[in-house]
Amino acid sequence: MTTDFNFGSFFQSELDRLHDAGNYRVFAELERKRGSFPKAKKHGDGPDEVTVWCSNDYLGMGQSAHVLKAMHDALDSCGAGAGGTRNISGTNHHHVLLERELADLHGKEAALLFTSGYVSNWAALGTLAARLPNCVVLSDACNHASMIEGIRHSRAECQVFRHNDPAHLDELLSRIDPSRPKLVAFESVYSMDGDIGPIREIVEVAEKHGAMTYLDEVHGVGLYGPRGGGVAEREGLMDRITVIEGTLGKAFGVMGGYIAASTALCDYVRSFASGFIFTTALPPAVAAGAAASVKHLKASEMERARHQDRVARVRARLDVAGIPHLPNESHIIPVMVGDPHKCKMISDWLMEHHGIYVQPINYPTVPLGTERLRITPSPVHDDGDIDRLIDALSEIWGHCALARTAVAA
Amino acid sequence: MTTDFNFGSFFQSELDRLHDAGNYRVFAELERKRGSFPKAKKHGDGPDEVTVWCSNDYLGMGQSAHVLKAMHDALDSCGAGAGGTRNISGTNHHHVLLERELADLHGKEAALLFTSGYVSNWAALGTLAARLPNCVVLSDACNHASMIEGIRHSRAECQVFRHNDPAHLDELLSRIDPSRPKLVAFESVYSMDGDIGPIREIVEVAEKHGAMTYLDEVHGVGLYGPRGGGVAEREGLMDRITVIEGTLGKAFGVMGGYIAASTALCDYVRSFASGFIFTTALPPAVAAGAAASVKHLKASEMERARHQDRVARVRARLDVAGIPHLPNESHIIPVMVGDPHKCKMISDWLMEHHGIYVQPINYPTVPLGTERLRITPSPVHDDGDIDRLIDALSEIWGHCALARTAVAA
Repeated sequence: MTTDFNFGSFFQSELDRLHDAGNYRVFAELERKRGSFPKAKKHGDGPDEVTVWCSNDYLGMGQSAHVLKAMHDALDSCGAGAGGTRNISGTNHHHVLLERELADLHGKEAALLFTSGYVSNWAALGTLAARLPNCVVLSDACNHASMIEGIRHSRAECQVFRHNDPAHLDELLSRIDPSRPKLVAFESVYSMDGDIGPIREIVEVAEKHGAMTYLDEVHGVGLYGPRGGGVAEREGLMDRITVIEGTLGKAFGVMGGYIAASTALCDYVRSFASGFIFTTALPPAVAAGAAASVKHLKASEMERARHQDRVARVRARLDVAGIPHLPNESHIIPVMVGDPHKCKMISDWLMEHHGIYVQPINYPTVPLGTERLRITPSPVHDDGDIDRLIDALSEIWGHCALARTAVAA
Repeated sequence: MTTDFNFGSFFQSELDRLHDAGNYRVFAELERKRGSFPKAKKHGDGPDEVTVWCSNDYLGMGQSAHVLKAMHDALDSCGAGAGGTRNISGTNHHHVLLERELADLHGKEAALLFTSGYVSNWAALGTLAARLPNCVVLSDACNHASMIEGIRHSRAECQVFRHNDPAHLDELLSRIDPSRPKLVAFESVYSMDGDIGPIREIVEVAEKHGAMTYLDEVHGVGLYGPRGGGVAEREGLMDRITVIEGTLGKAFGVMGGYIAASTALCDYVRSFASGFIFTTALPPAVAAGAAASVKHLKASEMERARHQDRVARVRARLDVAGIPHLPNESHIIPVMVGDPHKCKMISDWLMEHHGIYVQPINYPTVPLGTERLRITPSPVHDDGDIDRLIDALSEIWGHCALARTAVAA
């Protein structure tokens, strides 16, 4: 007699494999302290308080008085949840205001909100690629999981072009029947290496071939461009990009995702995307908080300037200490370790001995052998925080005989 | 020379087709008024204030003082957003507390939060079905879009069993190699018809064949069972179901989704589901509000009793007026119209002439020819609200020569 499949032992053995490979994820249980970011209370073993060095609340907008006031006010006026999908009683005035704010941010006719950046990529790319007749997607080799899953879900033909390589994109596009709809999907700032794509060159190649462009700016919005419209705003390219996708959960400090594009395109995705239609809308207070954040960062350059200053300071100090980090033009500082066990060990040691929290980034978030600490300085990290980080990293680099770069000074 | 694909005219022509078919969705722009639910301010044309009769905030928990206090407090203590994915600095104490609350609600070892119910189904089913070796999914014919998309995404073999038909499920399972992992996915309360599945019979068939069971209780949690654990709690079946999936965005009045299951299963999904891993965590205030709602509804029967009373009253009054509605054992009252244009016209008329808001439910949310008004009474609808609804429906049914059922009284 055949035995039934044993679910429990399957799950356990798969988890055991993760443990053995050093890729099992242990979440740090935090309570971020409003008014004291980057400080957070830490639950569980270890120190009671930590300094967070790996948050994507890049500008500390999660504790902005403007954002919090807008959220408190909307809670008081509209209550907790939206109460339905956008179509069935769930569209709140605050969603509409936020969509207008986002369309304006990117100089587009319209914007469409999703419950997260992940869902916006998955649903928008999935819908466009599936429904455009005989569509071919041209996808950068390093695109985020949410874009890959959306493209995969669409079952459209997908051709991957070499990372940040417009010449390769051109080559691939040249071979495709000009009458087919073509969708070029890429990012501005790549999350884990922090490198910035050649947006202008990619747009020019796409235009040459009549392809639409879909740019993920989740690590760019709020942070780059005079009004925080992202790298494409800084480069003066927003009007040449068909769809700009962004998030409200990183630099804007709240939660949610969106696309900004033509009225017809947004209406099309709104009308056909399962991941948009069949889900409860964002709480009005979340939309109100996000709108306040976007509005504030359109007018205020201070946070962006201080952010860049902090990033430059951390980089310079790392160079002096000879701690190897990936060079890039963004705000993301990947300190390379190259081994999952070592990466976790360093992270644990920083937490335990110095109250410094930097999550180890292991496979599958990054390729095997490129395990790293991904450091994200923010305007709320002061000089003392930076000193303590560098001292602690220097100490552990000394203890563990980790490779140093040639010391710069 | 071949012409490039014209994206703009494609989107527009697809939207025109929706308009022509009567399936173009127009969102009502509302501002729900905390303290005055089911009343909401209405933006745009038409009345300034409406009574909402189609919300999925089934119990009005979106304006509960407990929920709002928890959200205000968490905003003040932790700030706006979580600041990262669950793995990278985004796990807040409030997420952990909520997961404990949900595991307890369903009598399971563990629970795992997602950003929405849609994502929980898509990610959990997608991950389980894709990664269980050679898995076969048995899916109820009326499962929600999020389950279908998750199963589709997994690329696992999927066999659809007739809606609520354990005998057909048994027949299909009997033909599958016993050693293959089998996953039976179904719902307790089906959203659009409001019918309740034969959970016990389905569980027994699944047990007979060594299949795991995945029950979507999004329209059940908070509403059924002595502690609001859902229909499976009421039937004493929670411990026999492998995975219970629920939402925090309907009866609990906030936002988010979850699964409750064994520690190993939750840990497995936590470790491998792209839609869980690569997305910003829920704002701490959202988690705190949801936890307060779950906790309150575990202890309080009042809301559930009043809810059932309101539902019974609306049904009885509809029967007296001869307005046709689908009979079912749940709280969802589908008033059948059967034509998309007529359905939208009635909805518009109710809004314009009576300030009553019931969104028309058209294809693809329901099959063509079954267009309906989906009425969801709640504890916050008083007798006067019900009188006005029935009077208005009677008036329009008279005007439009819509079919009436035999008048019951």
